Amino acid sequence: MDNVQFAKGLEGVIAAETTICKIDGENGKLYYYGYSIEDLAELSDFEEVSYLLLYEKLPTSAQLDEFRSNLRAGRNLAPQIVEMIRSFPEKAHPMELLQSVISYLSGYVEHKIDHSPSCNCRITLHQIAQISTVIAAWERLRKGKDFVAPRDDLSHGANFLYMIRGEKPEPYEGDIMDKCLTLHAEHGFNASTFTARVVASTLSTCYCSISAAIGSLYGSLHGGANERVMDMVDEIGSKENVKPWIENALSKKQKVMGMGHRVYKVKDPRSTIMEQFLVELSEKKGDSKYYDILKEVENEFRSKMEAKGKPIHPNVDFFSGAVYRLLGIPVVLFTPLFAAARVSGWLAHILEQRKDNRLYRPKGLYKGTEPKAFDPIDKR
Amino acid sequence: MDNVQFAKGLEGVIAAETTICKIDGENGKLYYYGYSIEDLAELSDFEEVSYLLLYEKLPTSAQLDEFRSNLRAGRNLAPQIVEMIRSFPEKAHPMELLQSVISYLSGYVEHKIDHSPSCNCRITLHQIAQISTVIAAWERLRKGKDFVAPRDDLSHGANFLYMIRGEKPEPYEGDIMDKCLTLHAEHGFNASTFTARVVASTLSTCYCSISAAIGSLYGSLHGGANERVMDMVDEIGSKENVKPWIENALSKKQKVMGMGHRVYKVKDPRSTIMEQFLVELSEKKGDSKYYDILKEVENEFRSKMEAKGKPIHPNVDFFSGAVYRLLGIPVVLFTPLFAAARVSGWLAHILEQRKDNRLYRPKGLYKGTEPKAFDPIDKR
Repeated sequence: MDNVQFAKGLEGVIAAETTICKIDGENGKLYYYGYSIEDLAELSDFEEVSYLLLYEKLPTSAQLDEFRSNLRAGRNLAPQIVEMIRSFPEKAHPMELLQSVISYLSGYVEHKIDHSPSCNCRITLHQIAQISTVIAAWERLRKGKDFVAPRDDLSHGANFLYMIRGEKPEPYEGDIMDKCLTLHAEHGFNASTFTARVVASTLSTCYCSISAAIGSLYGSLHGGANERVMDMVDEIGSKENVKPWIENALSKKQKVMGMGHRVYKVKDPRSTIMEQFLVELSEKKGDSKYYDILKEVENEFRSKMEAKGKPIHPNVDFFSGAVYRLLGIPVVLFTPLFAAARVSGWLAHILEQRKDNRLYRPKGLYKGTEPKAFDPIDKR
Repeated sequence: MDNVQFAKGLEGVIAAETTICKIDGENGKLYYYGYSIEDLAELSDFEEVSYLLLYEKLPTSAQLDEFRSNLRAGRNLAPQIVEMIRSFPEKAHPMELLQSVISYLSGYVEHKIDHSPSCNCRITLHQIAQISTVIAAWERLRKGKDFVAPRDDLSHGANFLYMIRGEKPEPYEGDIMDKCLTLHAEHGFNASTFTARVVASTLSTCYCSISAAIGSLYGSLHGGANERVMDMVDEIGSKENVKPWIENALSKKQKVMGMGHRVYKVKDPRSTIMEQFLVELSEKKGDSKYYDILKEVENEFRSKMEAKGKPIHPNVDFFSGAVYRLLGIPVVLFTPLFAAARVSGWLAHILEQRKDNRLYRPKGLYKGTEPKAFDPIDKR
């Protein structure tokens, strides 16, 4: 037994075949069902991308209208859910609340667990529709403000900003928010998506699977990197301070947040798009402080690393925190927003898992003590 | 890419080393940290077994007193949790509620995520203490009865029966209930335990990890086998009907529930103990109908299968449903009770995962379409 090989964290192990997401790390390309993230961000919106992820193809005009209308009709929260949000302990994290609410919502639905067109995952869009409402409600209520009911004449992203602010965002803001959701909607087998698939493989409900995935995304090794990028930006404070800060960080072997990616060997394509959003927002808001600092960090750190023969590039988290901050979104909502977007990808993986299901049941390798006698309590 | 090998459901793949649970399938033996399940069922109780699972050793008398007292002090529910239970949709399943409540409880705790002696997993025993209270509260409230607050002078199992019934159970009933929890407390890397470890590997909270595991256990491919054994018993109806029922089942290749186990090649040791409980309860209650049917199913089916050279034996689920029914527990609570017991094993695995953590991050094997152009909506 001592020589048995295994890969810690299942690193490099293939868990399943998938047709959802292609990540081309060498060339910095990302596709959902064959469509490039650049095309989806430019030509589509989060609702259409969610349709694509659930139905494996782009909708016709009639299909999209119906899907949008169902999704928007499902945005509002039941009074009991608002009460759960209101009573949630003040210092607690909204990810714990979100995980709780999604399992609770499972109780409102009669489940049909399969891969047919009438499967609940597709019909009951609560999870996609409601996560952003739960987040916005928590944000308002904890600040002593009224809950703002969702509107059905706004895109998913614009409606989120509306519910947080209580007033309609500028069209460019709603548009950028919506595209940020598209950029985060899917990215293959990360830990939360794998969690969703493992739970779905027991034939649990899609709500219970999504709830579990939220619990996984909450972990600091998974979600939350863009929060730490903004901590870094705040610590640096000014463009002028970037050079000395980077030199100091390198000398202390301190990590530069938001740079580098396990899969992308060149610039993460989502980062390129996110940078454009940040440039646009900085211009429109007349505040380029965050962009100036981040761009200087990118250039400085990249040139230092290139000199060492270790090229490194920004990932999706590098610019996104600054985009969210310029949209007026507090840091504590960054990871919940990730869930609000990724839910569509999780549902795609749950459906794919059910198509050709096998219960995930790996083995543990026993390294413990050999059998021993039970000592009476006075002999311990 | 087409010839890449992988194991569906990670079958046979080792996910981690473990020192918690040794399963000797050839000899039908099960050990928690080296102590046999027979000794633990006979000489210990669920609270002490939970201590063993959390601290990796049996407690001294003083340690056990402190642990018991903390655990019992944590049994009662916050008013908001009772309200969540009361408002839960009537037709929904208590596993969805349990998953929701445990994430919600995460919000009540300041988390310390590590493997030190002061780690929250050990100090805040909410999850172990409260799951059975949530189950009992749901059972009472849905029947229009009052919530029965827990007592602190009863064992974990006896208190559960007390909270469901509103009156103290007979000592032998409380004792059997408590030992049933011990038998279900831990069993290596099943899907729910693996889920708990995957979520814990992101450094999410222990509550969020347990909540996810509950979602996994809810799936019909994981929990719920003892419910189906009782469906079978009810369908058979009498001892006399066993032979024709089995013959019919075999001819239709219909599954005989509760027989056979992936790991145990002989009788599941938990089943042997569970059978003793059923014999005792049948005698005390003067009702041996379930036992008579089950024993006849075991003998009939085993002899038929032995004749085919396929020896097969009862697993833990074979007798447990009948034990629960004789204790007055409705079928819908069988899987939640599994969670009430397994929570201690899940916590042991979460602590073990954190000791030498690596994020679970397997790969997907892309088999989808090649990149394609985004068609305008009127061209689809």
